[in-house]
Amino acid sequence: MPETELDLTLDAARLTARLVDVPSVSGDEKALADLVEQALRGLPHLTVDRYGNNVVARTRLGRPERVVLAGHLDTVPIAGNVPSRLDGDGVLWGCGTTDMKSGVAVQLRIAATVPEPNRDLTFVFYDQEEVASHLNGLGRIAEAHPDWLAGDFAVLLEPSDAEVEGGCQGTLRVLLHTSGERAHSARSWMGSNAIHAAAPILARLAAYEPRRPVIDGLEYHEGLNAVRIEGGVANNVIPDACTVTVNFRYAPDRSEAEAIAHVEEVFADCGVTAFTVDDSSGGALPGLSHPAAKAFMEAVGGRAMPKFGWTDVSRFSALGVPAVNYGPGNALLAHKVDERVDTKAILHCEERLRAWLTS
Amino acid sequence: MPETELDLTLDAARLTARLVDVPSVSGDEKALADLVEQALRGLPHLTVDRYGNNVVARTRLGRPERVVLAGHLDTVPIAGNVPSRLDGDGVLWGCGTTDMKSGVAVQLRIAATVPEPNRDLTFVFYDQEEVASHLNGLGRIAEAHPDWLAGDFAVLLEPSDAEVEGGCQGTLRVLLHTSGERAHSARSWMGSNAIHAAAPILARLAAYEPRRPVIDGLEYHEGLNAVRIEGGVANNVIPDACTVTVNFRYAPDRSEAEAIAHVEEVFADCGVTAFTVDDSSGGALPGLSHPAAKAFMEAVGGRAMPKFGWTDVSRFSALGVPAVNYGPGNALLAHKVDERVDTKAILHCEERLRAWLTS
Repeated sequence: MPETELDLTLDAARLTARLVDVPSVSGDEKALADLVEQALRGLPHLTVDRYGNNVVARTRLGRPERVVLAGHLDTVPIAGNVPSRLDGDGVLWGCGTTDMKSGVAVQLRIAATVPEPNRDLTFVFYDQEEVASHLNGLGRIAEAHPDWLAGDFAVLLEPSDAEVEGGCQGTLRVLLHTSGERAHSARSWMGSNAIHAAAPILARLAAYEPRRPVIDGLEYHEGLNAVRIEGGVANNVIPDACTVTVNFRYAPDRSEAEAIAHVEEVFADCGVTAFTVDDSSGGALPGLSHPAAKAFMEAVGGRAMPKFGWTDVSRFSALGVPAVNYGPGNALLAHKVDERVDTKAILHCEERLRAWLTS
Repeated sequence: MPETELDLTLDAARLTARLVDVPSVSGDEKALADLVEQALRGLPHLTVDRYGNNVVARTRLGRPERVVLAGHLDTVPIAGNVPSRLDGDGVLWGCGTTDMKSGVAVQLRIAATVPEPNRDLTFVFYDQEEVASHLNGLGRIAEAHPDWLAGDFAVLLEPSDAEVEGGCQGTLRVLLHTSGERAHSARSWMGSNAIHAAAPILARLAAYEPRRPVIDGLEYHEGLNAVRIEGGVANNVIPDACTVTVNFRYAPDRSEAEAIAHVEEVFADCGVTAFTVDDSSGGALPGLSHPAAKAFMEAVGGRAMPKFGWTDVSRFSALGVPAVNYGPGNALLAHKVDERVDTKAILHCEERLRAWLTS
C-alpha cells in the first residue's frame, strides 16, 4: 500500500505508528485529515462528512441508540521524536503516541472492522485541540453542524490508562484586584499599599477547604488556588494596584454561574476592589447512570474514575450528550519528549470497545 | 560677557536661569563643569581642584571650623522644559530649576561674594547624582580624594523649601522568597502553593506598626512596605515560587546591620525560604547638636525637620561630617515637566547663608 493511503487492516498498534509518522501539529492537520477521510470513504457502511480539517463518519443502521467515538488529530510541536520507534518491550515512542494517535488508531480500527455494530456509531476526528479553545475543531463542528455530534453517549479516546474517567471538573479563572494610593516609599504613610491589601485574599486562599463531592459514585476534588500574583510600580513607590489570579477547579455538580457566585462569596469581605472573570469553562457530569454508559462500563470493566482536569467531554455535555474519557496511554506522558505508549494497551482498548459494540 | 563664561555678579535668581540654560543631563555635565571651574578659578581667594566632572573649591584661611556646601550639577533628562522661563510672578520654570541649579547658583554666589568667611569653606560641585549610586560624583570624590570633603559640618543644597532637613533615613531592600511544589491546578493537592505561602508575610506587613523615634529633636517616621510581589508559572500550574520585595525605610538611630536584623526578625516565623538583601544604604544622624550646626540653625532660622528620604547627606555622615539639607525649591516638583522655583526663595537662601558665614 502506498504512503499516500492508510491501511486499516493493520492492527491498532501498527496503525498508531503509521499515524505518528504523519506529522500533524495543530494548524497543520490537512495531510492527516485527508488520509483519514480517504480511508473512511473506502468503507461502504459509513457516510462521511468533512468540515475544514474535521472528519465525521456515521453508520445509518436505525439502531435505537447512537454512540460517538471522538478523538483529535493534532499534536503539540514535534521535539525530535518523530518518526516513531518501537522498542523491544513493545513500547511505541514518539510525539502523539499517547496524546492521542493511539486513540485515533482505535477509532479507525473500530470503524473498519465493526460494520454492523449493535448501536449506531459516529466517529469524530477533529483538529486544533492542543491550542486556543476558540480554534478547537470539536467546538467548531458543534457550532456549524451540531447534528453531526448527536448521540446518546460519547467516548473521548484521550489517554486515561485504559480506565474510564467520568465527566470532568469545570475551571474558572478570576482576577481579584486590590487598590491603594501611590506615595514615595520614604513617606509611606502618605499612601496606601495595595499589596498589603491583598493579605486577606491570600489568607483566605491558604485556609480554603475544598469540597470532595461524590457524583454518580465518583469522588471529585475541587481546588481554589492563586496561580499568579503581581503588584508593584518601582522599588521606591507604594504600589496602588495588585492582582491575584485565582483558578477554581470545581466539581460538575456546580454550574458555571454557581462557581462564579461561590468565588465571589469566598472573597466577599477581603477588600477586593474589582472582580474580573477571565476564563470560564463548565464541567461535565459523568452521566454514568445512562443505560449506554452502564453497558459501556460493563463491557470495558474496571472502576470509573473522576476526571479532575477539563476536557472536551464538556463540549459533549453542553450538547446534552453524556461523555467519558477512555483511551490507551498515560496522560502524564503527554506533551513530553519521551512520550510513549504500551502497544498492549492500544490493543486492549480496541478489543474492549469492539466487545461493547458487538455483544 | 560671552556665553562661554558664567557671570557671578548676577544675582542668584538670574544665575539659576543661566545655569538651567546650559543642559547638563547626567553623564553630560562637562560643559557646565567647565564653566563652573573657569568661574571659580577667577576667584583669587579659592583654590580649585577637579576630578572628572567634579569641581571642588576651598578657602585656606586657617579658621578653626570648616563647612562644606555641596550640590550636584546634573539633571534628569530634559522634557521640553529648557531654556528656562521667568513668569510675571517671579517664578522660574525649567529642568533643574528646583533640583538643583538654584542651589548651585547659591553656592556660586557665596563663593564669589564672601571672600573672607568666618569659617573656612569648601564648595563641592559634583556629577551623576540622578543615576545609579555607583556613578555618583560625591561618592567618587569620597573614594579618590576624601580629604577634599573634610569638614566639621556640611550643607547639601538640595531643595528643602528653604527649611533645614536634618540627617536622613536609611533604606533597605530585601527579597523574601517562598517556595512550593508545582502541580497541575486541576490536581492542586498534588503540589504546594508558594503564593498561598506568602499569606503570613503580607499579614505581617499589613499589621506592622512603624516606629517614630525622636532624634536630636526631630521625629523620624519609619516604614516597612512591600513594593513588589510576583509569583506564578502559568494559569494552570500551582506556583512553586513567590517573591515579595520589601523596602524598609528606617530612622538613623539604626545601623544598616541593625536594620537587616530587624527585618529578619519581623519575618522570622512567616515561612520565608530565602532572605536576600538587594540594596542597603545607611541613614545619617542629623548632628544638630554640633556647634557649627547650632550656629547654622540660628542663622537660617525656622525649625529643623527630619529628612525621610535617603540623600547624599548620608555620604558625608559616612565620612564623619554631620550634614543637613537646606536649599530653595520644593522637592515634590523635582523631575517634573512643570518643575519651577520661586526666585524669592533662591535669594532668601543666599541671604541666610551669607548671614551665617559673615556674622
